[in-house]
Amino acid sequence: MHTVETVQVQTPGGHYPIHIAPGRLATLAQAIPADATSIALITNPVVHALMGDEVTQVLAQTGKRIVPVILPDGEAHKTWETLNQIFDAMLGAQLDRRTVIVALGGGVIGDMAGFAAAVYMRGVRFVQVPTTLLSQVDSSVGGKTAVNHPLGKNMIGAFYQPIAVEIDTDVLKTLPDREMSAGLAEVIKYGLILDAPFFEWCEKNAVGLREREPELLAIAIRRSCEFKAWVVSQDERESGLREILNLGHTFGHAIEAGSGYGALLHGEAVGTGLIMAADLSAELLGFPSADVERVRKLVEAIGCPTVGPRLGGVDQWMSLMRGDKKTRAGEITFVLMPKIGEAIRRGAPAELVERVILRNTV
Amino acid sequence: MHTVETVQVQTPGGHYPIHIAPGRLATLAQAIPADATSIALITNPVVHALMGDEVTQVLAQTGKRIVPVILPDGEAHKTWETLNQIFDAMLGAQLDRRTVIVALGGGVIGDMAGFAAAVYMRGVRFVQVPTTLLSQVDSSVGGKTAVNHPLGKNMIGAFYQPIAVEIDTDVLKTLPDREMSAGLAEVIKYGLILDAPFFEWCEKNAVGLREREPELLAIAIRRSCEFKAWVVSQDERESGLREILNLGHTFGHAIEAGSGYGALLHGEAVGTGLIMAADLSAELLGFPSADVERVRKLVEAIGCPTVGPRLGGVDQWMSLMRGDKKTRAGEITFVLMPKIGEAIRRGAPAELVERVILRNTV
Repeated sequence: MHTVETVQVQTPGGHYPIHIAPGRLATLAQAIPADATSIALITNPVVHALMGDEVTQVLAQTGKRIVPVILPDGEAHKTWETLNQIFDAMLGAQLDRRTVIVALGGGVIGDMAGFAAAVYMRGVRFVQVPTTLLSQVDSSVGGKTAVNHPLGKNMIGAFYQPIAVEIDTDVLKTLPDREMSAGLAEVIKYGLILDAPFFEWCEKNAVGLREREPELLAIAIRRSCEFKAWVVSQDERESGLREILNLGHTFGHAIEAGSGYGALLHGEAVGTGLIMAADLSAELLGFPSADVERVRKLVEAIGCPTVGPRLGGVDQWMSLMRGDKKTRAGEITFVLMPKIGEAIRRGAPAELVERVILRNTV
Repeated sequence: MHTVETVQVQTPGGHYPIHIAPGRLATLAQAIPADATSIALITNPVVHALMGDEVTQVLAQTGKRIVPVILPDGEAHKTWETLNQIFDAMLGAQLDRRTVIVALGGGVIGDMAGFAAAVYMRGVRFVQVPTTLLSQVDSSVGGKTAVNHPLGKNMIGAFYQPIAVEIDTDVLKTLPDREMSAGLAEVIKYGLILDAPFFEWCEKNAVGLREREPELLAIAIRRSCEFKAWVVSQDERESGLREILNLGHTFGHAIEAGSGYGALLHGEAVGTGLIMAADLSAELLGFPSADVERVRKLVEAIGCPTVGPRLGGVDQWMSLMRGDKKTRAGEITFVLMPKIGEAIRRGAPAELVERVILRNTV
């Protein structure tokens, strides 16, 4: 047996454990409560081909009925329509309120399966089984669920906590390189907003992390979950503190939306967004320009793009960022850094923002 | 000024007041928090024609931007697709997270606007302004929101509490007779499950209630809100006690679904369902058969149908009732009465249920 790392998440919406270990999938049946009537296993074709049989066999140990729901892959399918496919399948199988949803996949599957759990018969229990680095360190923790709308990302959703998050680090062995890079962007984000020594640790270990050295990954995932769990326990519903987790995301959302959802991975866009947030922090808050370069170098070292697309120019950029739901009545609020390891929210003059856009896009 | 009756609702999901008074619409601006950025006024064409201008003028006193969203009328439109119309309109108008939704209408508008509030940008505040007797005494209190699915009623939704419920008894003056009867069915339901003296009061005052005598309506609405507020404060998420509020609803749902949503009003179907629940209680729990006749007589006196449709026979009935989301893995749980004023949940042998169906349908 491997050591199982456990991070406890406490929010007003629920208390639950995050378990992290190699081979963790083999113990998944333990996460299903005894009084569950059935299991809806929500996944996508790629993940299903890689581990669907193994997970189904493990869950069969519970003796409960298992209904697989296989959704189309990718952010472009994180829609209202795909969500309805889940309800069609679950209601067609007559699954009741004591069903447990198991979300097996990356952030897209987790967001949709979690939202489905939040609203199916006004709420059923669900277990997050994130299979990408990004979802392991970010989206599976904290209870944010949603689908996209043609007018914006994650516009329709709920704060809804899982009953457990089960992270198997072995599944990263088959993860495509781009997805590793995208996940590492969120890892270094935690260093930038909360912990300068962790940022330095990431700088030192960037190569080993990209090469998936198991000990380094275990540390990175566990630390990331601890950071995120701490933040959401302070502020489940994103009324203040939690918004610092969106460092790089206002720029990142514009890159994703402007490129068409699915062209870039979320984490890749955030990687570029971190550089732009550092650059804007230098313009506005005196963040050292040498540290902007450190951010740029680390984003490059983990394999994310260091420049964004120019799109239709600054006007389109501003309008895409204004569509972000963190804005209040038109004003754009950014998460910015006075220095590495510290983040605040702040509005910024349009001319500074435009300068940053022009400097970091081609 | 009229006296304003106030009922306080306390649930883990939120505390809020229900205000009841003639002319209450005129004070609606007070229900909008000062920090709201804008107001989405969700209603239907019938209600909009009757009171849309008045409400808009009152809300304009807040100085906030008002975006009207007018949805098609009726239970048949309480769908996933109509819900999406709300999001299209709100996102199209760039309404942010500090928007307050005002639900102006009956139960259908309240359920959809409330669910939209629960999931728009992961949750915005909303105010219930129920304009039918049914919604005033039932659906506007307790935070149950939902839309229908082709495979069942209220299958997709959330428990989400409003910040206030504002009840203007004057709006009942223009309510169609059938809707008065449907609302009174839920009023007498409270007597049946919780308070025999209140049931007797309803028997004595059935004619006056149908004729909308203001003092009687004020008593009936206030008492009903108190009953419901007490029950949901004990059990917000319907894990036990709250299910007694579903007396008559398992039969009623089958009548509604079998007749096609919209052919009968919800409360009319519940009226017939109350008789069937009393009849099944007599079969199973020794509920006095003389009291079954009292229930039948009162349902008739308030103007609801006393027999249901036979539909495709008992098999279709059983299958429609089994689709109800309160069932657990196939077994049907009913709310039944040992006597008037007391309700419990209980499974029932299929042959007894079938006898009750045959006896009360044509």
